[in-house]
Amino acid sequence: KDYKEPPPAPLFEPGELKSWSFYRAGIAEFMATFLFLYITILTVMGVVKSNSKCSTVGIQGIAWAFGGMIFALVYCTAGISGGHINPAVTFGLFLARKLSLTRALFYMVMQCLGAICGAGVVKGFQKGVYESNGGGANVVASGYSKGDGLGAEIVGTFILVYTVFSATDAKRNARDSHVPTRTRSDNFSPQYFGLDVQLLAPLPIGFAVFLVHLATIPITGTGINPARSLGAAIIYNKDHAWDDHWIFWVGPFIGAALAAIYHQVVIRAIPFKNRS
Amino acid sequence: KDYKEPPPAPLFEPGELKSWSFYRAGIAEFMATFLFLYITILTVMGVVKSNSKCSTVGIQGIAWAFGGMIFALVYCTAGISGGHINPAVTFGLFLARKLSLTRALFYMVMQCLGAICGAGVVKGFQKGVYESNGGGANVVASGYSKGDGLGAEIVGTFILVYTVFSATDAKRNARDSHVPTRTRSDNFSPQYFGLDVQLLAPLPIGFAVFLVHLATIPITGTGINPARSLGAAIIYNKDHAWDDHWIFWVGPFIGAALAAIYHQVVIRAIPFKNRS
Amino acid sequence: KDYKEPPPAPLFEPGELKSWSFYRAGIAEFMATFLFLYITILTVMGVVKSNSKCSTVGIQGIAWAFGGMIFALVYCTAGISGGHINPAVTFGLFLARKLSLTRALFYMVMQCLGAICGAGVVKGFQKGVYESNGGGANVVASGYSKGDGLGAEIVGTFILVYTVFSATDAKRNARDSHVPTRTRSDNFSPQYFGLDVQLLAPLPIGFAVFLVHLATIPITGTGINPARSLGAAIIYNKDHAWDDHWIFWVGPFIGAALAAIYHQVVIRAIPFKNRS
Amino acid sequence: KDYKEPPPAPLFEPGELKSWSFYRAGIAEFMATFLFLYITILTVMGVVKSNSKCSTVGIQGIAWAFGGMIFALVYCTAGISGGHINPAVTFGLFLARKLSLTRALFYMVMQCLGAICGAGVVKGFQKGVYESNGGGANVVASGYSKGDGLGAEIVGTFILVYTVFSATDAKRNARDSHVPTRTRSDNFSPQYFGLDVQLLAPLPIGFAVFLVHLATIPITGTGINPARSLGAAIIYNKDHAWDDHWIFWVGPFIGAALAAIYHQVVIRAIPFKNRS
Repeated sequence: KDYKEPPPAPLFEPGELKSWSFYRAGIAEFMATFLFLYITILTVMGVVKSNSKCSTVGIQGIAWAFGGMIFALVYCTAGISGGHINPAVTFGLFLARKLSLTRALFYMVMQCLGAICGAGVVKGFQKGVYESNGGGANVVASGYSKGDGLGAEIVGTFILVYTVFSATDAKRNARDSHVPTRTRSDNFSPQYFGLDVQLLAPLPIGFAVFLVHLATIPITGTGINPARSLGAAIIYNKDHAWDDHWIFWVGPFIGAALAAIYHQVVIRAIPFKNRS
Repeated sequence: KDYKEPPPAPLFEPGELKSWSFYRAGIAEFMATFLFLYITILTVMGVVKSNSKCSTVGIQGIAWAFGGMIFALVYCTAGISGGHINPAVTFGLFLARKLSLTRALFYMVMQCLGAICGAGVVKGFQKGVYESNGGGANVVASGYSKGDGLGAEIVGTFILVYTVFSATDAKRNARDSHVPTRTRSDNFSPQYFGLDVQLLAPLPIGFAVFLVHLATIPITGTGINPARSLGAAIIYNKDHAWDDHWIFWVGPFIGAALAAIYHQVVIRAIPFKNRS
Repeated sequence: KDYKEPPPAPLFEPGELKSWSFYRAGIAEFMATFLFLYITILTVMGVVKSNSKCSTVGIQGIAWAFGGMIFALVYCTAGISGGHINPAVTFGLFLARKLSLTRALFYMVMQCLGAICGAGVVKGFQKGVYESNGGGANVVASGYSKGDGLGAEIVGTFILVYTVFSATDAKRNARDSHVPTRTRSDNFSPQYFGLDVQLLAPLPIGFAVFLVHLATIPITGTGINPARSLGAAIIYNKDHAWDDHWIFWVGPFIGAALAAIYHQVVIRAIPFKNRS
Repeated sequence: KDYKEPPPAPLFEPGELKSWSFYRAGIAEFMATFLFLYITILTVMGVVKSNSKCSTVGIQGIAWAFGGMIFALVYCTAGISGGHINPAVTFGLFLARKLSLTRALFYMVMQCLGAICGAGVVKGFQKGVYESNGGGANVVASGYSKGDGLGAEIVGTFILVYTVFSATDAKRNARDSHVPTRTRSDNFSPQYFGLDVQLLAPLPIGFAVFLVHLATIPITGTGINPARSLGAAIIYNKDHAWDDHWIFWVGPFIGAALAAIYHQVVIRAIPFKNRS
């Protein structure tokens, strides 16, 4: 047995509030979510404002923007903050006790602030275009019920958070690496932040986001990230966007919780193991 | 010689029926095939229901959905069940004696159940749209004979299963890793489940699925996965879909068998070696 | 200095004619080129026969088919034959003395045979459609001179073969691996076949093929692979295709030679080093 | 602590002017930027000259050409020159003292020369088409102010250079590799050139370029690379292109400087550490 289950994170860990790496992680989450909204909402605007989708990067290009940004940003910030960039991911990892409640709340606030700023910069480019084209806000498309939208958000977030758990599983990492896990004697413990610093994990995580967008853009525009939905809604700020907004918090959080339960109970069978 | 051919799996292995990991593997196959059908058939529906393919992710987007889901799901479930997600893959690996007959049949049943549920959820979103647009079921397109469809399924599945064998070859793994294979003293033996836990294998496997879709969507809609074809056919359930349905079982199984023979006889020359 | 330049391959190596691995490598090249033409020409047919490119995978989908197949096939056959799948690659590696003349000629014959069979199977699906849509054969598009076509083939093949050399450089491999190169005491020597068994090399090589197609499909349909051009031309077999055919042999061979010279003389400075 | 911060590069290092590897690095930067402009501008021409974008690789194909070439070229030249292929990247790495001023200026000159030659070859194919379709030169699109264009260039280059820093971080490399960094006793020191020879770094870097193009092609055509903008402007050489040209030098250099500051000050906290 060449791996060791990391102990569950405490709910409150006063020590981390005194370390620079805690605040740095929050800044990294802010910056990543800012850049995420900037690129993705700008891509959405470029597509929706054009009459002929053929002369734009198209709906598929929008899906690449969301998935590709998550790939690049998880790659860049995994070693700093764990690379969540999404309150639903933070929530799922918190349920699995991979990070403290303090850290989880701090991350979520920073993600939402970053998302609002990112969408705001996009609006700054062309205010009229932004407002007349929906502002990239998530709404349930006509022809679908609110239940459809909620279901799409639940399953979509399940796929994302399940991929995060699978790709960053400590047991798997030990197995994959073909070398004994090095003893971590420094006080930087990547597992603690939720995402192990794993070489290839960002690729399936980014692909999961891309794939959910391919499937559910016609239904809800695809949220699966409450910070992304909140940022666009606040900057767009019309009734239309706020009516369905609860779906993009309730759906992702339910999906993330189901993924955490599935991974911890079914795949890892943690409740049935003796604690060491 | 720094690798060791794993011994062939027994046809029946009573021991595995008593282990939780056997049932967990089946659940993982069910879940993966469920998510596979959910995302892919939902993407197909989004494209076919629109008059202008330009305002959707397009046929290329459909190909990405199929290939990308296989990439992400193989990555996530390789360590749990081997990540087959396809009865043809299970059949090919069974012929190469990589898993027991019991396990192979259990996997196939779980894959088919997962596929039916996945297609069912998609139908639940928009029943009318689903039924008037073919339900994502595989049929031979007009202009092609049934022989064309069968041929396309055989060669397509050959490419997929040949990639699975090449990418997960135990000999290759030892060679690639540049470090001596670690002695596997635990009772988890990944090769046994068909797919070694290999870092990059999911990428060419997913790409193989993507590429076969690029080429053969105009011919059959691309099956190369009997569970995917069965799930869509059962939920769509019209004569049209059932008429050609045998092609999507016979073709993939012949293709998988040819790939198993090609890899074991030509590439590995196993019949000509002395058993140690 | 933790790597060792492999000695140049002899022109004729009688020993390899007696080994099964030599013939197996030829079979693998045949099979890979067969599958390469099958998928790519079938994708081309699906796009060109449709009036509206929007309801197909599009020209970009064609580029993905060519690049993606090279990625998957190099990944699968690198350990068996070096994964050339292209007489121009074989020629470039032969000039750098990475394989014997006997092996180079054998590979080229097998590649051309595989390509002819692959294109033939595509024609078998819909003979009329195949013949009325150009059969996937490479010709210089109207508006471009033969010199343009030749230039596009030279630079395109340069990019491909330069990527092959860079990605499989023995010096680089030693440097990248961060562990001492293991002593190869078995009689399998991957460098000898031209492509080292390197984990990530297939990805940039496949991308190079994809990118050259993005740029030069409007000029020549993109050859950069004489076997691919020959296979389509023989099966299509109309004057139109044969008129420009020399371009798709002369161009790729010049490009491959330039890439071999650039890598060996400029990058590796081999002529200026003392031989050990 | 298993990594060591490399010491800052001196401003002038007379020794490197006498080494072949210095000039070879410049040639590699020239060649890479030449091939980069050749493929990307040729792809742009193929798309813009067609009335129906549907029968081309589309705007998304242009984004793939830019991002994919950076991926392939960084992979191929990282071990030779660090794989900058972009004066803004060179500038950012110079500010972080990863290479000498002499080397930085030499790289920038070679990059610009390569870009001019690459765009020139594209013009040689179809001079009339080139001149009547904007020549791939970067300009601020109508509907956007010069400030919008400058902002888009700043944030876009920030994303690229931030990804370069994150992906090639020496601290991260040590952590990721799971083996002690090998003592570099040879006089080749990859960190010195700016980009460590890291296995996966080219992928997020290429993706960053792809993503910025998805978002900002509608605004400026996307520069984020002064050599690319200069090469196209010089070969196109019309007032229209020169009017906005300063934006594509000032924007990228500001963006690169901000990324260098963000990474060195916020992420690495270098100013607050004691020098050893």
